[in-house]
Amino acid sequence: MQVMDERVGIENQGQGSGRPSTIGVVGGTGALGRGLAFRLATAGHQVRIGSRDPDRAKEAAALLEGGIVGGSNAEACASDLVVIAVPWPAHELTISGLHKELDGRIVIDCVNPLGFDERGPFALTVDAGSAVQQAQLLLPGSTVVGAFHHISAELLLEGGDLDTDVLVLGDDRDAVEQVIALVGSIIGLRGVFAGRLRNAGQVEALTANLIAINRRYRGQSGIRITGI
Amino acid sequence: MQVMDERVGIENQGQGSGRPSTIGVVGGTGALGRGLAFRLATAGHQVRIGSRDPDRAKEAAALLEGGIVGGSNAEACASDLVVIAVPWPAHELTISGLHKELDGRIVIDCVNPLGFDERGPFALTVDAGSAVQQAQLLLPGSTVVGAFHHISAELLLEGGDLDTDVLVLGDDRDAVEQVIALVGSIIGLRGVFAGRLRNAGQVEALTANLIAINRRYRGQSGIRITGI
Repeated sequence: MQVMDERVGIENQGQGSGRPSTIGVVGGTGALGRGLAFRLATAGHQVRIGSRDPDRAKEAAALLEGGIVGGSNAEACASDLVVIAVPWPAHELTISGLHKELDGRIVIDCVNPLGFDERGPFALTVDAGSAVQQAQLLLPGSTVVGAFHHISAELLLEGGDLDTDVLVLGDDRDAVEQVIALVGSIIGLRGVFAGRLRNAGQVEALTANLIAINRRYRGQSGIRITGI
Repeated sequence: MQVMDERVGIENQGQGSGRPSTIGVVGGTGALGRGLAFRLATAGHQVRIGSRDPDRAKEAAALLEGGIVGGSNAEACASDLVVIAVPWPAHELTISGLHKELDGRIVIDCVNPLGFDERGPFALTVDAGSAVQQAQLLLPGSTVVGAFHHISAELLLEGGDLDTDVLVLGDDRDAVEQVIALVGSIIGLRGVFAGRLRNAGQVEALTANLIAINRRYRGQSGIRITGI
């Protein structure tokens, strides 16, 4: 039965499946945050973007379509699902400061711990193993799921067709299924369960490879899983 | 011009492109080694599979089509390109013992440092950063390229259609291009440059995620890069 359920999820990709939810985006004024907010609002969800500076979030929300609301990060947390879309250097501090607001919630971490030097991007070592594991350590009362690591903010914001899978990582089956449904509500995306949190580090780090691919082939690369 | 050259490579996928070469497969009696040998021989290359036990390699070669020759690992190294397809626990010792035979050659490392426990597969920590970086450290006179990490040995051996990209990692542009051409000579495969050796660890580790995907969705998963 479990396999059957997942196959339904697979087939539902890009069909605008899944019931509408309220989604908060912490760090919602960054490119990825705005891009996800835009696509999620287009998919019919009620989206709140948050920022350390609520006025900036309100400005960013006003520039996006879909009735998106802006406010503080804490206000964004009052949602069914909360996406963490802050830059890696702000990850620990931002999440620590929101642990009460995020208590009991499903938190989607899409942060990539990457460094850049003259030879391009590279994966940073994270003591916890990955950003999403760090988030779970900082948020013992939340259920943290990893997703949206590889998706191009520019592609999201441009509004064109999407054609990529989203690898979804988590230890809680129900939370993973909710995130897979959320991903599938965005046309052109398919959520694929890709393992437990302990296998999230390489998924985050793979973003460095996609950036290398983009540079070599002058594209905006994504991933599709074949054979399932 | 470089971008143009690569786009030609991209378009040549699965067309049986690339001139025939002699290919050695160290650890060629394992499932992945035999699968790669079979597909490379089918693509028109002259393939030598090696083993610690030359008789086992000869037996394995006789069971595969395509005029594959079996012998010692050292004999397999006397080839234009040499694939290392040993299990991770044998990686360091096998490569160390072949450093003279591999001197001056292009070496393709496809070894995944993975562990398995009751919760499934997980990435092992490698001091050098990745198997392919370890190989390059052990073989200072060779040019090591990473490739074929994600491909299912069963799919290769079954002989059915392939539908996957092969991420190719390396610091030497010419060697990378030769490996991309080799990958493209196998119908259904496309080689994609995916970054320098320092970004190989997450590509190797991603195999744990593909195994998790296989278990959840009961498939034999592969990866396609979209948007390039």
